[in-house]
Amino acid sequence: MSKTGAGNFFEDFSLGQKIVHATPRTLSDGDRALYAALYGSRFAVQSSDEFARAIGYPASPLDDLLVFNTMFGKTVPDVSLNAIANLGYAECLFSTPVYAGDTLSASSEVIGLKENSSGKTGTVYVRSRGVNQRGEEVLSFVRWVMVQKRNEKSAAPAAVVPLLKKTAGIKTGMPRLTPANWDFAQSGSPDRFDDYAVGEKIDHLDGVTVEEAEHQLATRLYQNTARVHFNQFAERDGRFGRRLIYGGHVISLARALSFNGLGNAFRIAGINGGRHAAPLFAGGTVFAWSEIIGKATQGDLGALRIVTRATRDVPCGDYPVEDGTAETPGVILELDYWALLPC
Amino acid sequence: MSKTGAGNFFEDFSLGQKIVHATPRTLSDGDRALYAALYGSRFAVQSSDEFARAIGYPASPLDDLLVFNTMFGKTVPDVSLNAIANLGYAECLFSTPVYAGDTLSASSEVIGLKENSSGKTGTVYVRSRGVNQRGEEVLSFVRWVMVQKRNEKSAAPAAVVPLLKKTAGIKTGMPRLTPANWDFAQSGSPDRFDDYAVGEKIDHLDGVTVEEAEHQLATRLYQNTARVHFNQFAERDGRFGRRLIYGGHVISLARALSFNGLGNAFRIAGINGGRHAAPLFAGGTVFAWSEIIGKATQGDLGALRIVTRATRDVPCGDYPVEDGTAETPGVILELDYWALLPC
Amino acid sequence: MSKTGAGNFFEDFSLGQKIVHATPRTLSDGDRALYAALYGSRFAVQSSDEFARAIGYPASPLDDLLVFNTMFGKTVPDVSLNAIANLGYAECLFSTPVYAGDTLSASSEVIGLKENSSGKTGTVYVRSRGVNQRGEEVLSFVRWVMVQKRNEKSAAPAAVVPLLKKTAGIKTGMPRLTPANWDFAQSGSPDRFDDYAVGEKIDHLDGVTVEEAEHQLATRLYQNTARVHFNQFAERDGRFGRRLIYGGHVISLARALSFNGLGNAFRIAGINGGRHAAPLFAGGTVFAWSEIIGKATQGDLGALRIVTRATRDVPCGDYPVEDGTAETPGVILELDYWALLPC
Repeated sequence: MSKTGAGNFFEDFSLGQKIVHATPRTLSDGDRALYAALYGSRFAVQSSDEFARAIGYPASPLDDLLVFNTMFGKTVPDVSLNAIANLGYAECLFSTPVYAGDTLSASSEVIGLKENSSGKTGTVYVRSRGVNQRGEEVLSFVRWVMVQKRNEKSAAPAAVVPLLKKTAGIKTGMPRLTPANWDFAQSGSPDRFDDYAVGEKIDHLDGVTVEEAEHQLATRLYQNTARVHFNQFAERDGRFGRRLIYGGHVISLARALSFNGLGNAFRIAGINGGRHAAPLFAGGTVFAWSEIIGKATQGDLGALRIVTRATRDVPCGDYPVEDGTAETPGVILELDYWALLPC
Repeated sequence: MSKTGAGNFFEDFSLGQKIVHATPRTLSDGDRALYAALYGSRFAVQSSDEFARAIGYPASPLDDLLVFNTMFGKTVPDVSLNAIANLGYAECLFSTPVYAGDTLSASSEVIGLKENSSGKTGTVYVRSRGVNQRGEEVLSFVRWVMVQKRNEKSAAPAAVVPLLKKTAGIKTGMPRLTPANWDFAQSGSPDRFDDYAVGEKIDHLDGVTVEEAEHQLATRLYQNTARVHFNQFAERDGRFGRRLIYGGHVISLARALSFNGLGNAFRIAGINGGRHAAPLFAGGTVFAWSEIIGKATQGDLGALRIVTRATRDVPCGDYPVEDGTAETPGVILELDYWALLPC
Repeated sequence: MSKTGAGNFFEDFSLGQKIVHATPRTLSDGDRALYAALYGSRFAVQSSDEFARAIGYPASPLDDLLVFNTMFGKTVPDVSLNAIANLGYAECLFSTPVYAGDTLSASSEVIGLKENSSGKTGTVYVRSRGVNQRGEEVLSFVRWVMVQKRNEKSAAPAAVVPLLKKTAGIKTGMPRLTPANWDFAQSGSPDRFDDYAVGEKIDHLDGVTVEEAEHQLATRLYQNTARVHFNQFAERDGRFGRRLIYGGHVISLARALSFNGLGNAFRIAGINGGRHAAPLFAGGTVFAWSEIIGKATQGDLGALRIVTRATRDVPCGDYPVEDGTAETPGVILELDYWALLPC
């Protein structure tokens, strides 16, 4: 009996199955600093204890996507080590903020299974949930992945595809904030909720070239063990001939780029859906643009529904929508999410 | 109206103009660790709480250049996003030490403006000031940058060039230190203030090759958004055909190298002047040498006035002074500063 | 008189000589986060305060090899700056755990000297010892290095080769742990002490490709100043034509890879012996496998004696033992150590 985890295959999942993920992780200001160095994010609430306290947080919360990526990493050894593709995300809700010193752990439930017509792979739907050391939910999300079968001849399970909401909703598990104390000079943007209109498009202008060392450092920080990100010896002969960059790294890059245009959109409330349209490799330059597709209020705050698209090697001045491929530049990420900002 | 910052052009500055910079930033031991990993600095005061307490600090202060680079980064989106060149620094004074947990914010005042004869660019002089969460000044400095005009036909403002001091002076905003408790074995150098003579030259011996991932991590840690450092897609067709390394990264590399020969020069009191003589690109190896050009005492401490020169791809055994260019090895930095050490 | 350290040569060492090393270092959660990003280690005790407290630690201790590498780094300027080769380790004992906020300092004693027959080099044996701010020993180890002579004509000292134990033993300087509270779901492995048999071999499966920026960040984090790791300008004309990766980086990589198969082996109690069989360079992919060569109990815990071998560019499915060279793939590290795990 091998003691090493080779990951689960499609046959290893069953509907309703619950999985406790290793390894619990205490996040700290060290993780915050690394996240800063990896993405250069400038949202004031996550950068300054003083700014965060002025609006009602007890201290500066950690970046929502640091929490997301940390949680995601925990699910990899059990859910997606043998995944061929990360197909999508839905119903991702951020609730209790996470602070330096909090310990996160994660579990998942299998909520859907569907063998593909090829008989070689199947799609697994899981709802993953992260809690802090007090058992308070900090994040939950659904994702679905295409997973290899161990044996092509295994019988297919009854197909169950969960009905997923088109919007994640917005949770209220956050401190009572005082957006009236928002300092628009310090935050780096004069634009508040009312300044954004549905249909508005924003080119985030900047581009950032990604290096192998950077995405490897990030992906390890998240304790994500997916092999395609780290092993050039194996990937040389793999699908792309090189290491594939973890999709969550692209999400974090796009969010950091979006500061230029969405500087007060300080918190991701939920991710309604997400799609990795094409792969990213080291040497590629990531650009991003956003479209406002909805507006709502949430207590004293406004919520913008935003679709951010990240591209590889395509500046976003004319708001490109065409998917890239491994060979051709184009859109690599489409992320539909709610972000909060002061009214 | 665009919501994205494209940076200020020469016409956007006016004499006496005050600018509040985004984003306030709480520095932590995470930033300290990253700074260590990026530069390998070994000054005992910034490395050990115990060493720092023995001489009178409440805890180990953060590296002066981490503070400088953090402050500098804040000024970039407002001052130098459209800069063609960082021309110089002066009157840089470090005052209240910065500790893990302190939150820094920055503002600037325009103190000089002079259009260049070409009519295409102008020089902007700003005095920038950083304060902690109690409003205590931690750092102030003057820098001047060559900035593009938005429109060549704009009228030139009245030329005002500030008179700048040749020496920054030395501020007293520091704890009452007890250099008698200095442990010369633990600090890594037996040499105290009296052991250095004006005119003395020191080759710092070591060389360090810089990688793209390293300078990008550093520059993002400082929330410095200048595009030339990150975007290979654009820079491929730019002035140098590649990403330019942030000048503050070179200053930090030179200071860390200078430990070998100036091991007890534990605090930068002020920077009298600085000049980036030539660009640095990834793959270049940085060496450094220093000359002692002045001595003074400051309370119980001695202050050495030092000119440190960093080179690209030139070992410093014979104290090179010739400037490099983008193509040829040579001096890339000349930094004139005061450093404190025990008598 | 030069103020810069050029390192000690063989003639500079004398039997019984005691060396206090610079620079004391306060380790923090920032170092923990960087260590995570550099190696992706997933041992629960070092990842989660909650997990660590459940079994009796006051908080999550820092990784043993972060402590080892930090200590090792301190010895480099005095012991191995002019080393040609790190020949071996022995009698390495980890005792008091190290927590964020602890300050480590290091000293060494010369316990052996032997000139080599060539007359150009000699072997220096030192026992190095690291203590925390309360003077409690956290680590001690013997290492021997081949060091250049300053002058071939210097007389050879009397040869003294210390008798070293074949096993480091296991120290008891640790909190009273409660392994009964071990959560095998959260730790990521169901396997406890009794599940391992002497003679058992484990392929750790994963491979990780190392980048220049990564090993440089790591080696600087440890304040290790050995020049061969950083200076491509000099190494271009050196032994290998490129930068050599610090051996301790390989040890940390191998230990992190070993999680997959040894997930509950949460603490290194001692290193019995170690050998760097071949060099590692950037671009190489590191794999690892382990063999259980002994078992013992230590209070309520079990101790496995493990030999972990790391390879360069050789997957470990058939447990390779052949040494690599600078040119040929093969074993690059052989590490014989005791690790603790719940019974």
